[in-house]
Amino acid sequence: MIVFGIDPGSVCTGYGVVRRHRGRLHYIDGGCVRTSSKEPMAARLHKIYTGLMEALGRHEVDAVAIEAIFSYRSSESALRLGQARGVALLAAAQHGHHPHPYNASTVKRTVGAHGAADKGALARVVGMLLGRPPEAPSDVSDALAIAITHLSHAPRLMAQQ
Amino acid sequence: MIVFGIDPGSVCTGYGVVRRHRGRLHYIDGGCVRTSSKEPMAARLHKIYTGLMEALGRHEVDAVAIEAIFSYRSSESALRLGQARGVALLAAAQHGHHPHPYNASTVKRTVGAHGAADKGALARVVGMLLGRPPEAPSDVSDALAIAITHLSHAPRLMAQQ
Repeated sequence: MIVFGIDPGSVCTGYGVVRRHRGRLHYIDGGCVRTSSKEPMAARLHKIYTGLMEALGRHEVDAVAIEAIFSYRSSESALRLGQARGVALLAAAQHGHHPHPYNASTVKRTVGAHGAADKGALARVVGMLLGRPPEAPSDVSDALAIAITHLSHAPRLMAQQ
Repeated sequence: MIVFGIDPGSVCTGYGVVRRHRGRLHYIDGGCVRTSSKEPMAARLHKIYTGLMEALGRHEVDAVAIEAIFSYRSSESALRLGQARGVALLAAAQHGHHPHPYNASTVKRTVGAHGAADKGALARVVGMLLGRPPEAPSDVSDALAIAITHLSHAPRLMAQQ
């Protein structure tokens, strides 16, 4: 089973592709679609959408998982984040997927980084689970962690692989 | 000059197309892309995107205008609204447009409905400006009002028509 994880953001939208095969996790792909705050928002969203469409098209994805967002610094940042999340959900829908949402605390608990305060700690745990060095930027590790979370929450689907 | 106005919303995304020709405003098209809260969010956003792509494709649009959002009931509603606004901005970008944002008070002031408390009042003013009965739902009137606002704020472009 191959899961495509997404951590949306207007500056960097991280994605990570993880396969579970015979009980082991394998890193398949990962990256960050980066945009500049100097560009118009419509152009930035177009870049995020195109980047995710390309990445989704490169793999035979069984499911898509995405960060569920419950806390915000401000309504303005919620709106901005919502816009990036909207085009990410759309890209998944265009590939026939309805993304499964997981909140940050579920993700941390699942990968075993619960209580970890800094982003670096999560990146190190994800690196260990996949047998790789920690990813940079941390948004890629976050996206991989979201994919891993879905793999551990979809046991019936996994059993079929 | 033809302007495509958008009033994004997760339940109903209104759009309105207005032409200014020889100093007069003409209604061209208007409608609402409606989604149900029972559908998964990715499917709803896909419907909004597809509906706006189709409507944009039906017209030779010179510019796109969209509601700028500054006040929210809650961060949750800002996120939801942001998702709808994100796919609306993307649809415009796919047609080569970077939407011009106008906030609600600018729109009301421009069409002459400043101080009007209810949505019905704006719909009646927009109807009068376009020589038509008020649109239903009011989201269509809002979108037409946004298009009219851009037409009155782009005098140099209008002079070329």
